[in-house]
Formats: sequence, structure tokens, C-alpha cells
Amino acid sequence: MAVGGPVMTVPELEAFLEREFPQIYLHGRIWHVEALGPGTARMRMDYHESQLRPGGTISGPAMMTLADLAMYVVILGAIGPVGLAVTTNLNINFLRKPEPGPLFAETRLLKLGKRLAVGEVTLMGQGHDDPVAHVTATYSIPPR
Amino acid sequence: MAVGGPVMTVPELEAFLEREFPQIYLHGRIWHVEALGPGTARMRMDYHESQLRPGGTISGPAMMTLADLAMYVVILGAIGPVGLAVTTNLNINFLRKPEPGPLFAETRLLKLGKRLAVGEVTLMGQGHDDPVAHVTATYSIPPR
Amino acid sequence: MAVGGPVMTVPELEAFLEREFPQIYLHGRIWHVEALGPGTARMRMDYHESQLRPGGTISGPAMMTLADLAMYVVILGAIGPVGLAVTTNLNINFLRKPEPGPLFAETRLLKLGKRLAVGEVTLMGQGHDDPVAHVTATYSIPPR
Amino acid sequence: MAVGGPVMTVPELEAFLEREFPQIYLHGRIWHVEALGPGTARMRMDYHESQLRPGGTISGPAMMTLADLAMYVVILGAIGPVGLAVTTNLNINFLRKPEPGPLFAETRLLKLGKRLAVGEVTLMGQGHDDPVAHVTATYSIPPR
Repeated sequence: MAVGGPVMTVPELEAFLEREFPQIYLHGRIWHVEALGPGTARMRMDYHESQLRPGGTISGPAMMTLADLAMYVVILGAIGPVGLAVTTNLNINFLRKPEPGPLFAETRLLKLGKRLAVGEVTLMGQGHDDPVAHVTATYSIPPR
Repeated sequence: MAVGGPVMTVPELEAFLEREFPQIYLHGRIWHVEALGPGTARMRMDYHESQLRPGGTISGPAMMTLADLAMYVVILGAIGPVGLAVTTNLNINFLRKPEPGPLFAETRLLKLGKRLAVGEVTLMGQGHDDPVAHVTATYSIPPR
Repeated sequence: MAVGGPVMTVPELEAFLEREFPQIYLHGRIWHVEALGPGTARMRMDYHESQLRPGGTISGPAMMTLADLAMYVVILGAIGPVGLAVTTNLNINFLRKPEPGPLFAETRLLKLGKRLAVGEVTLMGQGHDDPVAHVTATYSIPPR
Repeated sequence: MAVGGPVMTVPELEAFLEREFPQIYLHGRIWHVEALGPGTARMRMDYHESQLRPGGTISGPAMMTLADLAMYVVILGAIGPVGLAVTTNLNINFLRKPEPGPLFAETRLLKLGKRLAVGEVTLMGQGHDDPVAHVTATYSIPPR
């Protein structure tokens, strides 16, 4: 898509998140931006005990949290620090039970419009080819 | 829909959750089943600091977590304690920024099939008529 | 929700649809607005042979078409004739196979914002209490 | 994913569709399977007048119909002719207005389970790189 950039570096983006959203680090620095590209981002979530479920699998809400954050990150990377972007819709299909361990979110913008950004997020476990979940999400972005 | 019951009482259901999913109470007893009816449930989430976002609003992931749990609760109420029911799809539309305070999840089963249960969850703030979010979700349920 | 109106009558709305969207009547006058209320609408689809599938059931695409049109109708009823409103997201859960016969769409606006309108549509067969499908949809609406 | 095949050839698959779903060809042979791969399919829709909307754009319901059919086709290609597979959920994000002309559906299975198949469909216009819509869908498949 017609997305240049990214307009932020990974350290700039992580510093923005830690400054604006300290609450998400309450359980430690479990969120990591691993890569930013033009309309793409790769994040890693190091799971915390509170995110586990019986059998040692990662909880669904933890996967939704990672996907929602990954979408925000790919938008920030494309348009710069915008505190006011908000999720309007998120749809997730859970595909396989993830094993304990880090989860990776491969994110791709499908559209970056004046008012709405739409993207998809594929969640993968470490060393696995099959996705554990697939997400599409829409953010409302403030006029630039 | 052709749902009788509920087949569990509120105390039985809350005891099941605390025994099977202790992780969700890591931040205290913030989840409460307020009512169970035939194919319906009402839950309350007492927000925790980690669920707040700038401006004091409740985070989107906290709302998704409440909706997912509320769907599980209405299914448990309808078919009894089933540890193996898992979410296969969840779609959420965020409608308004909730103010800090408890969130309520009014849940209704749309279908209780042999293999799939589908329901909708309307999230409301205290003393507000307008929903803050609306969710539809599908659970895969084990053969009975 | 804070929706007054409706600001159009049923005949005005049906006349608008026939004038602006003649293509949807290619198979005859199968679309009917049965009622408009404040943020609500009820539509009826009289099925056409092309909408049937093996076993005489109504096709999924026919149900999606009805739901999408019903959402457009409830928005028109709330804000007046706006040719430029477009669907941005539609999520449908198919619940039961409908029998041949008219389908009814009970539609309710969940949010009518400056830029986005969100609603839900419950599709029912004639004389049945259980929904055959449930839809949530978002429309982007032009500045007023 | 663990999908071999395809187990049907393109001519076998198109013959199956024409035999089992004659209604979808009421407007002529507008549906074409262009390619089948392991867990992938490419379809083409040649638009019919009834699928146009003001400004000559392809209607949303026509796009939903193509996506639903493309998902069915990729499942048939993977597991063979199964008349009983039914859509349980479909989520579509409309991204750009397509111009008149054929639409292409690039489809990929995300999961092929015992009971559910989940896939994504990207809809593209001819000679355009940006998708006009993105769909995820779930089918319930009969026991094999």
C-alpha cells in the first residue's frame, strides 16, 4: 500500500509506549518491538504468569492484547506518535493453542486512510510455522 | 433460544472459575457474576489500575477480557462446568470511551449448538444507557 | 442511544432506494422497509429463486445483502438521505438454516457518531423466534 | 499448514459447483476458479450489471459473495467435494471502492481442523496492488 516510512525508529517507538502507556508494563517489560518496515511491524510478547491458562497455554485475552498493541505500533510507525488513535473494531480467530513461551505478532497495514487504518495481525509461537491466531483490526486516527 | 437452566448457581459458577482459572484473580477478585438466567448472564468487572489508560479510561483489552469471560460464563450456566470450551472467534466494536468505574457485561446466547455456542455481549458503564462496546463471540464446546 | 427521528418516512425511504439503487430491484421488489423507529428499522426480504441453495435454504450472501441494506436503511432513517454512506466492516454469524420464505431484519443502531455508525441486525424467518443469523456492521458517514 | 493437495483439479471443482449450485450461475458463468494450490485458491468474478452500484463500483454484497465462494472453493480443493460445509462466520473489511471490472479473490487456509476451517481472502481489482477488501471466514465441515 502507499505507505512510506517508517517515520519512527524502534527505540523512539518503544520510548513513546513506555512514556504514554506505563500501565502495560505493570508486569515488566514484556512488550518488544522487534522490527518496523513500510506498513509492517513485528512485536514480541514475553508471557507473564497472569497470562497463562490451565495446561500452560497463553490466554486468549493476552493474544488480543498483543494484537491490539501491534496494530497501534504499525500505525505509529507509519504516521508518527499519535496518542489519540483508538481501536474501533477488532476481530480475532483463534486457531491453535499456543505453548508457553514468547508470542510474535506479524502486522501489516491493509489500508491507511485519512480517518481509518485497517490491518491484519498474525500471531505465531516461537519456531512454529502455523499461526496461533489471526486478527484484523480498525483504528480511528485523528486528522493530520 | 431453546436453553433451559441455568444448570449452575452463581456461587457454584464463581467457585468453578476461582478453582480452574486462578490466574484471572491475580489482581484481586475483580470478576463477579451478578446474575444467571436461561441463556443470559450479567457480569461485573471492578477495574484494576493495570486496566486504565491515559485519561482514566478502561483499556480495550480489559473490555475484551470481560466479554470473553462473560461468554464463557453464560455457556457454563447453560451446560454446566466444562473446562474445555474454547473461544474460536471474537468480534468487538468499541463504541464509547468508558469512564473509570465498574463495567457490566450483559450476555445473551444466540445459539447453543452441539459443537458451537454463539452469543453477544453488551458492555455498559455504571448508570449509563449507551453501551461502551458490543461483542459477538463463538465458543467451540466439547461433545456432551 | 441519542437518536431522535426517524427523519424519513417509510415511503420516502423506499422511494430513495428505488431511485438511487435500481440494481437491487433487478429481481423484482423483494426489499421492503416494514417499520422505522428511533434508531431502529425492520426490513423484509422476499426471496428470489437466485437466492436459494440446495435443500431450499436461503443463501448466505442473500442474508448478508439483507443485513447490509438494513443497516443502510436504519442510518438513512436516522440522518436522512445520504448517498455517500459506505460499509466499512460487516461481521456475520450464521446460526441456523433458514427455510424458504421471507426473511426479516430487525436492526438497531448501537452508535451514531460524527464519522461512524455501528449497528446490529438480527435476521429471523417468518414465525420463528430463533434468529437465523446475527450481524454487526459499521458504516462510514459523510460529515453533516 | 498441514494441507496437502489440492485433491481436486480446477475442472473437477468448477463442474462440482455448476452441478451443486446452479443458482449462482443465474447471471451467467461469472465465477471462475483460476488456480488451486496447497491450501490456496485464486478465483475471478466477472461482474454482472446487477452487482454494480452508483458510480459504477462493484457492490459490497457482490464482494461478500465472491469471498464466501472463494473460501468454499479452497476448502473443496483441500478436502474434496463436500456439499455440507457451511459458513459459520464471515468478517469483511471494505478498504477501497473497486472500479468496474473483474475482481480476484486470493484465498489462503489459516487452519483446516476436524470440525472448522478458517481462511482469509484478499479481494483485488485487475492490475491493482492495493486490496479492495479483506475477509476472514470460518466454515463448519462435516466429519471425515
